[in-house]
Amino acid sequence: MNKILTRKSRLPALAMVLMLFMTLTMVFNRCAPADPAGQTELSELQKKALAFASPLPVHAFEEGMNKSDDLIELGKMLFYEPRLSKSGLISCNTCHNMATFGVDQLPVSIGHMWQKGPRNAPTVLNAALHSTQFWDGREPDVEAQAIMPILDPLEMAATEDHVLAVLESMPAYVEKFHLAFPDEENPLVYENVGVAIGAFERILLTPSPFDRFLNGDDGALTAEQKEGLEVFMGAGCQSCHRGPALGGTLFTVFETPVERASGKSDPGRFDITGNPLDMHSFKVPSLLNIAKTYPYLHDGSVWSLSETIDIVASDMLGTEFTREENSLILAFLGSLTGEIPGYALELPVLPPSTPETPRPAFD
Amino acid sequence: MNKILTRKSRLPALAMVLMLFMTLTMVFNRCAPADPAGQTELSELQKKALAFASPLPVHAFEEGMNKSDDLIELGKMLFYEPRLSKSGLISCNTCHNMATFGVDQLPVSIGHMWQKGPRNAPTVLNAALHSTQFWDGREPDVEAQAIMPILDPLEMAATEDHVLAVLESMPAYVEKFHLAFPDEENPLVYENVGVAIGAFERILLTPSPFDRFLNGDDGALTAEQKEGLEVFMGAGCQSCHRGPALGGTLFTVFETPVERASGKSDPGRFDITGNPLDMHSFKVPSLLNIAKTYPYLHDGSVWSLSETIDIVASDMLGTEFTREENSLILAFLGSLTGEIPGYALELPVLPPSTPETPRPAFD
Repeated sequence: MNKILTRKSRLPALAMVLMLFMTLTMVFNRCAPADPAGQTELSELQKKALAFASPLPVHAFEEGMNKSDDLIELGKMLFYEPRLSKSGLISCNTCHNMATFGVDQLPVSIGHMWQKGPRNAPTVLNAALHSTQFWDGREPDVEAQAIMPILDPLEMAATEDHVLAVLESMPAYVEKFHLAFPDEENPLVYENVGVAIGAFERILLTPSPFDRFLNGDDGALTAEQKEGLEVFMGAGCQSCHRGPALGGTLFTVFETPVERASGKSDPGRFDITGNPLDMHSFKVPSLLNIAKTYPYLHDGSVWSLSETIDIVASDMLGTEFTREENSLILAFLGSLTGEIPGYALELPVLPPSTPETPRPAFD
Repeated sequence: MNKILTRKSRLPALAMVLMLFMTLTMVFNRCAPADPAGQTELSELQKKALAFASPLPVHAFEEGMNKSDDLIELGKMLFYEPRLSKSGLISCNTCHNMATFGVDQLPVSIGHMWQKGPRNAPTVLNAALHSTQFWDGREPDVEAQAIMPILDPLEMAATEDHVLAVLESMPAYVEKFHLAFPDEENPLVYENVGVAIGAFERILLTPSPFDRFLNGDDGALTAEQKEGLEVFMGAGCQSCHRGPALGGTLFTVFETPVERASGKSDPGRFDITGNPLDMHSFKVPSLLNIAKTYPYLHDGSVWSLSETIDIVASDMLGTEFTREENSLILAFLGSLTGEIPGYALELPVLPPSTPETPRPAFD
């Protein structure tokens, strides 16, 4: 009756059920087409969708990158490691909580000494598929992105020296760095913290019903979601929300209603490039898991996805959706909610501090 | 080569390895004695240890308690649920981080608006085996304990109304409460939040080498750990550190060196009972996983376990250990580090907020 309490003690019974399941899975795997997209006739809608979207890859590593288990495991440990922060309390997972789709579901994040960040924290899920990182695109990839919040005085408020002292103080981390970077004599350098966390992020892809649809499974979307997809494409949303992450590749000028009302708009990418054309320019966010990564817009000022659809449609496309169209798009966006890899949800048990580990500082 | 990336795609090969393992496990389970403690001759040391300690139970539920999977699962969701807090940022796991043996490894915890708590946060692991909860024993069980930090203005800073409004706003929680409390017409009451979290805590038991030793496996402890156990018993540590959690059952007057030096000692249990005999009295902490639940003492003022051994031996027993004795006890305490249940380490994916969910407040 009780599966949790008996997980260990009822192993034989569990084993038989598992064996049956696995045998059936193996039989099924031999009968089913290996690649549905390649072997079944695609519908017109699927073909139209594949013109701007593409199925998720298995991972987001590029050719020639180190993608060893040791590196990914180290990255996961570091992602969940609060001792990287000055206070010993804040880890990547504090603001990119894996239990809530890689975000904190707050307008802006809370960091060291309860300071507020300037912009809404984007999800780490599928972030490796973006062509640049941060709202203003100031870093090229997840490896470069991951090491910035650790040093930001508003976020984890650490220094490179602190991070390296923490990691060098624990034999388990020293060993793991050597395993993860086998060709480097001194792998324990700050940049490699980002390489490892980045490697972990490169497996944080979330296959969704829409992904199955793109892969040839026409039944993966409901009739309503398909209608929503038609409305989405008809309005031209895909001119910005394109690629495997449905976003994350372009920049566009955007001021939120709250910013406009206050007269204080975030300069966005201008602060990075100094180019007047980039004033108030932001990276187009990914739509994957968008139903779960509220609140919305770069200032996290809008909680309703339906309202966000209207704001963006009006601002970006000059379009006013009917209530029915809005609701259909909402249904389509729901099909972008994917499955978080089970491996990412399994907390690592972190190695113990030693007398050499820097002590937490709360101020 | 790469196990993480290929976890799904290599199912058939994995299945075969698993089947072999499970078959061997089943064969082994039939051959091995069901209860080693009952069938093998116990050593003198094991008998002496069993006079003050006892093996961990499978779970810490008492006779007649609801221990359904639904209740435990609900408890796990609530344990990891930051929206119970006023800020939407702090969950039970913030201060009782499962990745670091159920503690935050900080002298005192950091709560709402970066406020410091008054005492070191004890681990949730094996806490259900204590006869009372909190350092001052002010609550009788984990069910009553779990709902206090949620309301504490220094910790999660919520109100009962806030918590119930959060939970009632999400259909997944409403359904889960009905499944977890099938006999109650209106199960969504604040007390049941504690019942559910308490149920989750009642499975957070961590079998250790010492536990295997008590269960009859004489080889579970090293020679050094056995010597340490002899020193431990010879000094009389077990007069307070007894029972399945090696602590958690008695109170004793204790002032930390930092308190003495400052002249400001925590009144402890006196604040609860008003009894002068309880002035500076605290619950004897459990020693399970003690090597991982630093810093030590009720004010979290000592980082070294070796130093803590000396402080407590001197204060409580009037004993001065030699460096060798101290190191042997340290080795024995290392045998109390157990295995965190894998189920507890698997983050639940939390249900999405709705328009009715109260918004986070940072002040």
